[in-house]
Amino acid sequence: MGFRHCSILGLGLLGGSLAYDLRRAFPEMALTGIARRQATLDEAAALLCDGVPVFTQLTRETAAVREADLVVLCTPVQTIIAQFTEIAPALCPGTLVTDVGSTKRTIMNAAATALPDDVTFIGGHPMAGSHLTGLAHARAGLYQGATWALCAPPEAEDAAFDLAELVESIGARPLPIEAELHDELVAFTSHLPHVLAAALTNVVLGHARGDAMLPFIAGGYRDMTRIAAADPGMWRDICLTNYDRLLAALQTLHDELSQWQEALRAGDVPHLQALLTTAHDRRERLNRKDEG
Amino acid sequence: MGFRHCSILGLGLLGGSLAYDLRRAFPEMALTGIARRQATLDEAAALLCDGVPVFTQLTRETAAVREADLVVLCTPVQTIIAQFTEIAPALCPGTLVTDVGSTKRTIMNAAATALPDDVTFIGGHPMAGSHLTGLAHARAGLYQGATWALCAPPEAEDAAFDLAELVESIGARPLPIEAELHDELVAFTSHLPHVLAAALTNVVLGHARGDAMLPFIAGGYRDMTRIAAADPGMWRDICLTNYDRLLAALQTLHDELSQWQEALRAGDVPHLQALLTTAHDRRERLNRKDEG
Repeated sequence: MGFRHCSILGLGLLGGSLAYDLRRAFPEMALTGIARRQATLDEAAALLCDGVPVFTQLTRETAAVREADLVVLCTPVQTIIAQFTEIAPALCPGTLVTDVGSTKRTIMNAAATALPDDVTFIGGHPMAGSHLTGLAHARAGLYQGATWALCAPPEAEDAAFDLAELVESIGARPLPIEAELHDELVAFTSHLPHVLAAALTNVVLGHARGDAMLPFIAGGYRDMTRIAAADPGMWRDICLTNYDRLLAALQTLHDELSQWQEALRAGDVPHLQALLTTAHDRRERLNRKDEG
Repeated sequence: MGFRHCSILGLGLLGGSLAYDLRRAFPEMALTGIARRQATLDEAAALLCDGVPVFTQLTRETAAVREADLVVLCTPVQTIIAQFTEIAPALCPGTLVTDVGSTKRTIMNAAATALPDDVTFIGGHPMAGSHLTGLAHARAGLYQGATWALCAPPEAEDAAFDLAELVESIGARPLPIEAELHDELVAFTSHLPHVLAAALTNVVLGHARGDAMLPFIAGGYRDMTRIAAADPGMWRDICLTNYDRLLAALQTLHDELSQWQEALRAGDVPHLQALLTTAHDRRERLNRKDEG
């Protein structure tokens, strides 16, 4: 089944990029963009895809979802949760609601509570994004090759199939997964790295000798801390709605770093060499996978 | 004073790139390349700069430094230390010896012990490099804009001036600094990030569920772990010759991460928001500095 009318709530990097891709893949689809700020709506009004306006309608009214058979929430996690309650009265029976939030358990639970029984909710999480935020950085092709996690209740098999097809048609790789497992895995691959990037930023640039350190900052440090410039509010929501899994990931890192500290304190050359070589080999294997 | 003949020991990324730059900046300078492996020497023999061979002489004999008035050691830290003893008998009085190793206290001490009194040693550390190693990745311009730390004994003022001039002529920024302070600063800006990249590689790619995590690895994780693919032997030497400063930096990170853990455990929204916002603002300031 194709979708006739998609409403996108939140016109930032993810919502904007999704709009570009949908306009190109489905020229006949009506696209409503919903944003709180007038400046964002004005910016969205100017977006063109192959010379055609990307959105067919732009509004601040979340109730505008009433016209859609597909609603995609592209706001920070806590906003998504609040918006379930806002949009619930306006949703038509049979509508498919999804989101792009980085944590899934809290969102799935909130959707189950707040949304009417006659609409279907499938949690979504595209592994795309950047430290660059906002509609100005949105672009066609952002989701190309990206894993797009889909958490569907068992009874939503047909809707899950339709959504997977949509996601594939814009170049992403749909991956059905349980919300529990999703949150455990991304705690390691995404949320832990973000906390580390921010912590490394704070200990170096916030150091009493931070100014003296500046000339000694090279590409490695820049690469490792780049994502610390991402939107703090968005990340606050992510960390808090996955705090238990994130704490477990931090504990695993703590255990790993304890090994490095022991090896350094003891001057244990073979142990240190083993830790470095293991990391080297694993990272090289990832490079080869990326290239192959 | 210009240098007449430079011998480069170690023809990897740093030694090879230095040779390209010196050949271009000083076409009249004799350049001897010294490497242990015949394959590296064969590779070096094929290097051209503006159609001219980069090296005027290539050899495995470290004693070939006898012809040089400038000797640059471009090998891993522990090899540099061993090579001081090897080259000492061959060095001519008045020769300037320097290096490109990432730690400076151990190297300065070893040079003071092993090198004859009638040569001058100035420790050097260019903040350039990459996870890509070896002569195949060497290129002209690698040092462009990079800080080049110079640790000179007080009596070597003239030689330090000459070396700073040389370094500037290939686009780097010479920065005179004491070895003690250098090692403290780079422990934070370079060695701590490396250990973190390797540790993050090990906890994710080495996780029992590592294969399930693969589809959830995105650009942030890749950027943060890229340097973990650097040469483990080189980094073993760096970590061990700066273990005390590196341990101090790891402790500072541990204290910072403890704050994050507390905030997460307590669900302390303002604290978490403050940690994220501080990191965001600091990283943005670095971006603006880089752009301006």
